[in-house]
Amino acid sequence: MRRIGMLTSGGDCQALNAAMRGVGKTLLKSGEQVEIYGFLNGYRGLIRSEFKMLSHSDFSGILTQGGTMLGTSRTPFKTIREPDEDGNDKVECMKHTYYKLMLDCLVILGGNGTHKTANLLREEGLNVITLPKTIDNDLWGTDMTFGFQSAVDIATECIDCIHTTASSHGRIFIVEVMGHKVGYLTLNAGMAGGADIILIPEIPYDIDKIVEKIKERERYGSTFTILAVAEGAISKERAAMSKKELKDAMKNYKYPSVSYEIADKLAKETGHEVRVTVPGHTQRGGSPCAYDRVFASRLGAEAGRLILEEKYGFMVGYKNREIVQVPLEEVAGKLKSVDPDAAIIKEAKMLGICFGD
Amino acid sequence: MRRIGMLTSGGDCQALNAAMRGVGKTLLKSGEQVEIYGFLNGYRGLIRSEFKMLSHSDFSGILTQGGTMLGTSRTPFKTIREPDEDGNDKVECMKHTYYKLMLDCLVILGGNGTHKTANLLREEGLNVITLPKTIDNDLWGTDMTFGFQSAVDIATECIDCIHTTASSHGRIFIVEVMGHKVGYLTLNAGMAGGADIILIPEIPYDIDKIVEKIKERERYGSTFTILAVAEGAISKERAAMSKKELKDAMKNYKYPSVSYEIADKLAKETGHEVRVTVPGHTQRGGSPCAYDRVFASRLGAEAGRLILEEKYGFMVGYKNREIVQVPLEEVAGKLKSVDPDAAIIKEAKMLGICFGD
Amino acid sequence: MRRIGMLTSGGDCQALNAAMRGVGKTLLKSGEQVEIYGFLNGYRGLIRSEFKMLSHSDFSGILTQGGTMLGTSRTPFKTIREPDEDGNDKVECMKHTYYKLMLDCLVILGGNGTHKTANLLREEGLNVITLPKTIDNDLWGTDMTFGFQSAVDIATECIDCIHTTASSHGRIFIVEVMGHKVGYLTLNAGMAGGADIILIPEIPYDIDKIVEKIKERERYGSTFTILAVAEGAISKERAAMSKKELKDAMKNYKYPSVSYEIADKLAKETGHEVRVTVPGHTQRGGSPCAYDRVFASRLGAEAGRLILEEKYGFMVGYKNREIVQVPLEEVAGKLKSVDPDAAIIKEAKMLGICFGD
Amino acid sequence: MRRIGMLTSGGDCQALNAAMRGVGKTLLKSGEQVEIYGFLNGYRGLIRSEFKMLSHSDFSGILTQGGTMLGTSRTPFKTIREPDEDGNDKVECMKHTYYKLMLDCLVILGGNGTHKTANLLREEGLNVITLPKTIDNDLWGTDMTFGFQSAVDIATECIDCIHTTASSHGRIFIVEVMGHKVGYLTLNAGMAGGADIILIPEIPYDIDKIVEKIKERERYGSTFTILAVAEGAISKERAAMSKKELKDAMKNYKYPSVSYEIADKLAKETGHEVRVTVPGHTQRGGSPCAYDRVFASRLGAEAGRLILEEKYGFMVGYKNREIVQVPLEEVAGKLKSVDPDAAIIKEAKMLGICFGD
Repeated sequence: MRRIGMLTSGGDCQALNAAMRGVGKTLLKSGEQVEIYGFLNGYRGLIRSEFKMLSHSDFSGILTQGGTMLGTSRTPFKTIREPDEDGNDKVECMKHTYYKLMLDCLVILGGNGTHKTANLLREEGLNVITLPKTIDNDLWGTDMTFGFQSAVDIATECIDCIHTTASSHGRIFIVEVMGHKVGYLTLNAGMAGGADIILIPEIPYDIDKIVEKIKERERYGSTFTILAVAEGAISKERAAMSKKELKDAMKNYKYPSVSYEIADKLAKETGHEVRVTVPGHTQRGGSPCAYDRVFASRLGAEAGRLILEEKYGFMVGYKNREIVQVPLEEVAGKLKSVDPDAAIIKEAKMLGICFGD
Repeated sequence: MRRIGMLTSGGDCQALNAAMRGVGKTLLKSGEQVEIYGFLNGYRGLIRSEFKMLSHSDFSGILTQGGTMLGTSRTPFKTIREPDEDGNDKVECMKHTYYKLMLDCLVILGGNGTHKTANLLREEGLNVITLPKTIDNDLWGTDMTFGFQSAVDIATECIDCIHTTASSHGRIFIVEVMGHKVGYLTLNAGMAGGADIILIPEIPYDIDKIVEKIKERERYGSTFTILAVAEGAISKERAAMSKKELKDAMKNYKYPSVSYEIADKLAKETGHEVRVTVPGHTQRGGSPCAYDRVFASRLGAEAGRLILEEKYGFMVGYKNREIVQVPLEEVAGKLKSVDPDAAIIKEAKMLGICFGD
Repeated sequence: MRRIGMLTSGGDCQALNAAMRGVGKTLLKSGEQVEIYGFLNGYRGLIRSEFKMLSHSDFSGILTQGGTMLGTSRTPFKTIREPDEDGNDKVECMKHTYYKLMLDCLVILGGNGTHKTANLLREEGLNVITLPKTIDNDLWGTDMTFGFQSAVDIATECIDCIHTTASSHGRIFIVEVMGHKVGYLTLNAGMAGGADIILIPEIPYDIDKIVEKIKERERYGSTFTILAVAEGAISKERAAMSKKELKDAMKNYKYPSVSYEIADKLAKETGHEVRVTVPGHTQRGGSPCAYDRVFASRLGAEAGRLILEEKYGFMVGYKNREIVQVPLEEVAGKLKSVDPDAAIIKEAKMLGICFGD
Repeated sequence: MRRIGMLTSGGDCQALNAAMRGVGKTLLKSGEQVEIYGFLNGYRGLIRSEFKMLSHSDFSGILTQGGTMLGTSRTPFKTIREPDEDGNDKVECMKHTYYKLMLDCLVILGGNGTHKTANLLREEGLNVITLPKTIDNDLWGTDMTFGFQSAVDIATECIDCIHTTASSHGRIFIVEVMGHKVGYLTLNAGMAGGADIILIPEIPYDIDKIVEKIKERERYGSTFTILAVAEGAISKERAAMSKKELKDAMKNYKYPSVSYEIADKLAKETGHEVRVTVPGHTQRGGSPCAYDRVFASRLGAEAGRLILEEKYGFMVGYKNREIVQVPLEEVAGKLKSVDPDAAIIKEAKMLGICFGD
């Protein structure tokens, strides 16, 4: 008898259910005796020993469903070493649940924060296998994460819709795409949506370059301009600041987000109306796209295989079109981000896209 | 030879091109000699005599395209009686263009503001036929406007996406739907998306009722709540104020919109995270839905027929599933809004939806 | 205590779950004691007394789901008066189940065949309320049925996809749309997709008129033509035949459907490649569109209200934008079909659409 | 001054316009003097010297449009060495056009057939750069082709729609997916759509294994089964035949396609209704998905760069997540197909998917 725990942690995204279905089906169809414990609401369920048993029917019909059937939370991540509400040590609680239920392994689906905790549990002696979930595609050790392509689809549709309005009104439109530290989502949605200007955290922008681009477009007869701006887009001035300087500079920041600040400046500089659209959490939601369903299913199946082979301590990742096992200690705490000199950036520039640099 | 002017005015929406295609095809296939002048960027093109001639090929392939091939603007509407940038009387300029080009009729596509101006031109002696365009469905004299159903589709998709995230995280989510004065869009998208609480301008809300509903949901085991909130949702307190009182009360309003204010209050009252999503202008954009394409095509065809029959001074509307001619003087200046006692409201309440009243 | 039976019968369609949710929520939130029995697989479940109890959680999360959570079948309909597999009288079995479970009412969701049986049960003394479900919109007594608009959306998307291929290759394409007797779906999808030729059962076609239209398009420079053809499209020759003549004429019919026959003829007459696409059952599937979700929810809520008021023997329909109660005896056995002289047909012709007549 | 010819050949697919836009924008924004000749309807336009000049505005607004703005045809491919209608040598005609217009290079977008001809032109001394277009993803030398992911999306949506109907009716459904020789599309759409059985040309099927799978599903309580079947799915018996034997065996083949033959057999063996759906050419149509837009844009930009660097004789392909130049002689005449031992097949089997082997 194998006893497997499973949980989803961090912000939700598309294809979490598809990935869990991949693990579950592989285990339950393997011919071995398997019990699967689904912990509720991320690590919180592991801490509190809150779970439900998952059987064949739980994994049926969830391939196409967004969200996570187990619920998720951002607990504990940053406060992992602080005691919980009842004064208990969280890590000890998690270990307690693990040993009490005589688990053979934990399957953990999550992003960067989740992987730090997962690696900590591995260091504490628990068997852990992880799956790379995030719309940001910013996990080190894998070329791709599930959720990403679905989020690109949604952000692209949003830009598509804005396109018709922008061209009808001759306005400047900013679409704010999710991504505080990493710009893959904005870059891809921006290129797919035909954005004229793309601002990502990895390439600090110069507002003058943006104004210049808009004016150049006007000279060539374009009556509208669309910007895809990552939540974490940053100006050259701020990027050059020390942490302390930045904190001071942002003390009385009056905008809800950087998009509104850019909008304000562009309105002043160009004399045009500038509108901001924030699709926000819709980018995490809805049914996963076909790509993510296949990808997450494959990763899930491979995680199931690892469990059956009792190979623990890995994230199941994707490198050079092959599914690979990446040691958890190599993943935790690292961030994958867009290389400003990457081929895709050069290609985008050849197409005339301005990055504000 | 008939000479027809055409223009789209006000905020753009889906199916403007489909409607113009309906008019254009009907006229050009009628066997009569017809010249169609497409004025650019709304009334502005009529004021400045900026237009392009529209031939058969211009109406081909546009059925599915969002936006308007003629461009639009909000000029003049509120400033119709003020002189334009060059000091000229706008109405006189428009009449001048009309007579100079020896037009037989103007086909004007627009919403409430547009219809006021259209009626004014009619009073000035011009032949005018209008088509009811708005995602708000707030035009008097017609059961339906094109753009509305497409906007419902987009706002509903947005709520669908939020649904998966909300249920995964156990949070309260607010989706802010377009509509400053009228709640049809929010009501329909909210019902289609399965929102638990719907706030529209026509039914002022009591924040306590909303809190109560959320707590009731919790008692019954629901870990999340979704609110569809119209841009123009208003509390009972403010709805009871005089214009002056309201203006004073809103003087130092600190929220970007009412959704954020409600979010703030709900967070305090319930202790839960509350997130706001604002799909914004995406609701006006993208390819029209099948319903709007058929509907706008039909209205356009009937407008074409009226022109051929030289019947002027009407909006082509839709009543009791029939396309009808509504005298422009009856339409202009009136607003159609949701009746708080309408059957659909009662049905929504039977389904358990809370309106905060 | 009220005991309500519920079943879905006939071909499935979108928004069946939404409608049942409407009924269920209205009943369960009414404050009265209610038990809901969901019979499985249509009347078959009623005959065999196969059911599951439906509680609040069964109606949660199903608003957006296609299909029917109860399953459906085409039993008994045409064989209603024949004994079932075990030699039992089907009607007696249904009555037996009804009385054994002490039901107060049956809520039956279905199309034309379903309504015949529902009316028969009413005549047998059972309390029945029905909801009009069909993608064909061919139910007498209601302006609209749920499923219809969702099917229009899917068939339209199909034509949209074909459009790009047709225009790229300069070919003739036929999209075969569902509808054996009634052409609403083909008519609306054809108009929404910009089909050049629309063939529906209500307007028998002359193949020469179709060839003529294609040649006329060529003369005007169009390199492709798209036909939306209903499954039940019929030539003038066959429409003029007696039932017996038609049966003889179709004895050795070599085509899978009329679309292929038309394709064959057009290929010979025009010398062009003609391709046929058959979206088939996809038109019944997938998540209901926003319109259908709202519409079905409203109908369901009103059905729930009727039950609470103990008003039986009605189909909940929709006339002139109001939800109405239509006596079942008026609905059963009648078919609503497209009037060849309807305004929408005239408008379609104004737009240049050829119906082959 | 550079003079560049461009053409699209073979079956159309999504993102052809996006790819051409990538080439066009890169060339026109490069600062060099460039003339772009767009040949109409594939090689036919090159043979007959039928073209239109492409300027900046031609490449604007086409990123999201399906089909090809240049038109396409399957000429000449198999008949390349036969004279054309006027008795002229096709290859000589193409060379004549090339030299007459003093072209520096031809940019050719197409699939396998197209690449054979492109390589032949290269051997004849013309400068050629190609881009890999096909929904089949069967081009040798590249991990991915544009059109593929968009087609996967459409075929998946089709299976999604069928899913709700299949589960409501308890039927067996076959969705016939495009792909005569190669199964990538069927495999991916089948996995994304949650098909239970996937039949592809590379893995000959045993009908008994399929029947067995369906019966096993029934034993475990599944009332329906969905098969994704490639157009070119082949039974073990036929796969073992010589070409001549196969030809004889298929002489009086009575089915429109193999799906209908399988349906017939399954109906007999299982006693269930089996329905076939054929999305057909819809799989090639409609707006490209976000992935394809980005991918095709990148390939197009790199093709533009190669032209500016005067590097000819390559297909711009994609290997290990990098855009690469593949010598045309290595691509032409080879087919990439699914390896029956590939990891993805093993993973699909772990998930319980039956391939009939």
